[in-house]
Amino acid sequence: MESDILYHLALGSGSHDLQAMFGDVKFVCMGGTPRRMEQFAHFIMKEIGHVLPTGTQLLDISHNSHRYSMFKVGPVISVSHGMGMPSVGILLHEMIKLMYHAKVKDPIFFRLGHTCGGIGIEGGNLVITESAVGTATLQPFLEAPILGKLQRRPALLDKGLAAELKALSTPDDQWQTFVGKTMCTTDFYEGQGRLDGAFCDYTEEDKFAFLRRIHEEGVINMEMESLMFAALCHHAGIRGAVVCVTLLNRMKGDQVKTDKQLLMEWQEYPQRLVARYIRSHLGTDQAEPLAKAPAGIRCLKQLHLTRQASEHFTSSE
Amino acid sequence: MESDILYHLALGSGSHDLQAMFGDVKFVCMGGTPRRMEQFAHFIMKEIGHVLPTGTQLLDISHNSHRYSMFKVGPVISVSHGMGMPSVGILLHEMIKLMYHAKVKDPIFFRLGHTCGGIGIEGGNLVITESAVGTATLQPFLEAPILGKLQRRPALLDKGLAAELKALSTPDDQWQTFVGKTMCTTDFYEGQGRLDGAFCDYTEEDKFAFLRRIHEEGVINMEMESLMFAALCHHAGIRGAVVCVTLLNRMKGDQVKTDKQLLMEWQEYPQRLVARYIRSHLGTDQAEPLAKAPAGIRCLKQLHLTRQASEHFTSSE
Repeated sequence: MESDILYHLALGSGSHDLQAMFGDVKFVCMGGTPRRMEQFAHFIMKEIGHVLPTGTQLLDISHNSHRYSMFKVGPVISVSHGMGMPSVGILLHEMIKLMYHAKVKDPIFFRLGHTCGGIGIEGGNLVITESAVGTATLQPFLEAPILGKLQRRPALLDKGLAAELKALSTPDDQWQTFVGKTMCTTDFYEGQGRLDGAFCDYTEEDKFAFLRRIHEEGVINMEMESLMFAALCHHAGIRGAVVCVTLLNRMKGDQVKTDKQLLMEWQEYPQRLVARYIRSHLGTDQAEPLAKAPAGIRCLKQLHLTRQASEHFTSSE
Repeated sequence: MESDILYHLALGSGSHDLQAMFGDVKFVCMGGTPRRMEQFAHFIMKEIGHVLPTGTQLLDISHNSHRYSMFKVGPVISVSHGMGMPSVGILLHEMIKLMYHAKVKDPIFFRLGHTCGGIGIEGGNLVITESAVGTATLQPFLEAPILGKLQRRPALLDKGLAAELKALSTPDDQWQTFVGKTMCTTDFYEGQGRLDGAFCDYTEEDKFAFLRRIHEEGVINMEMESLMFAALCHHAGIRGAVVCVTLLNRMKGDQVKTDKQLLMEWQEYPQRLVARYIRSHLGTDQAEPLAKAPAGIRCLKQLHLTRQASEHFTSSE
């Protein structure tokens, strides 16, 4: 192809020097919303001690697509994938092509799940997906309709990567880390057996029977992207991991009753675990968090005084 | 239920007086991106001559959800649905519940497709979906996995509404309007037989054979949301219509080569047709566009002079 346009990223191999821009990427981190992934970009910047040149700030690289938001912090890409398998699938096609054009060797892809339902696991814990299964088959396969025929693609994730992530959890963490099967659904309401959708043709008893059955099959959480993520990473030969935090135990109810402050804290857990992995593979300090001042700052106390003085003079003169 | 939380809209029946806020809604218009639906909100405001109170501007009602963007212009809601069936499905569950809580009788739902591929139809034309079909079955059914079992739901749209929309097109329009079957896919690349995804295990010949076959079955365009939209509207007994503009004829190629200016114009066509329908059912003037000055403006020329004078004085004093 003369010029390969990555429509939904607002990038192209003809219009951009993708190797110069992205050749140093080692980790691609995906998650649902633009806001969350912008916040992760700032978080990982501190964690790996990455410093932006004076007078620069992070830019949403894919802003012009109005589809996804993408940020780059040195070797780490942080990009939003929207909700559901079709949305994460389009992003994966284009991220895989981006890695190819940028000549990146062996990148690692992470999906950070900032919300998921635990099955037999309480809220505030981490689940690392071993394999992703569909709701109808309970088998680790994506059934992709291609030219009118269903193609089965294994939805397996890298075992070594999952084990390494699990080993980075410590007994001091506020959370426990589990490795198991993730059920990936195409709907949030009926598809996950909720009783509070616009429709519900089953009873609470039916719901719990279903949840018990999938739990017996080894499913420990539910979300809406892992099957596509696992299948496309596996098909492309890319090592990938899905790390989700549980917001509640669906075996006990459907409503999230945890207060907002605690929920916000929980949603940082997947980011903290993935940041440990990235730090350990970049060879930077493993102490968490890095208590360094940003580059160019000699003294935080003096900085505070300088800012105060500056504000005072501009508002009163 | 004591309080029904519409998680992805950042609204709730306990926290908000949904009837007071949304009781006057008659039309719900959905489309892909937040930006496009904000633009539609401003467009429809002019079209129906709706005037905001002095000192107010449109607000993204669902901003706090960081999922969808929703705007309200009198009787019209304009809301983004993201990409793919799972994303539009979550929105539909919550919009249907919102209509219920607001006690809205007989709302009409529109999906405005600002991009789709024509099958045997050139770029820059409108397709009104008669029924939505899946890629594997080519049948007008959504197969929804519920509690582990596939439920088949008819994906039919309101015939009368489609005919009325078609009749609102005139020979003077820059576009032609077609009514036919829409194929709804779960992927943009392999799912639509594109050759430029991250993977492609078929030939160009296979692709064209597939496109010819579905065209013979009556499919005239392809997109990624209509099947869920049609099935949930039908299941809820809500009259719904899908109006998409074609960006190219997939029978001739995959690349969109039209220049940006023209593409931007094409993307207004679905909005213009739906606006005609809304205007005709609100009983306002059918002239297009309304050449009125906004409320509070006595003379546009004087306004210009006032603004100039105002800018001049603030920058030079």
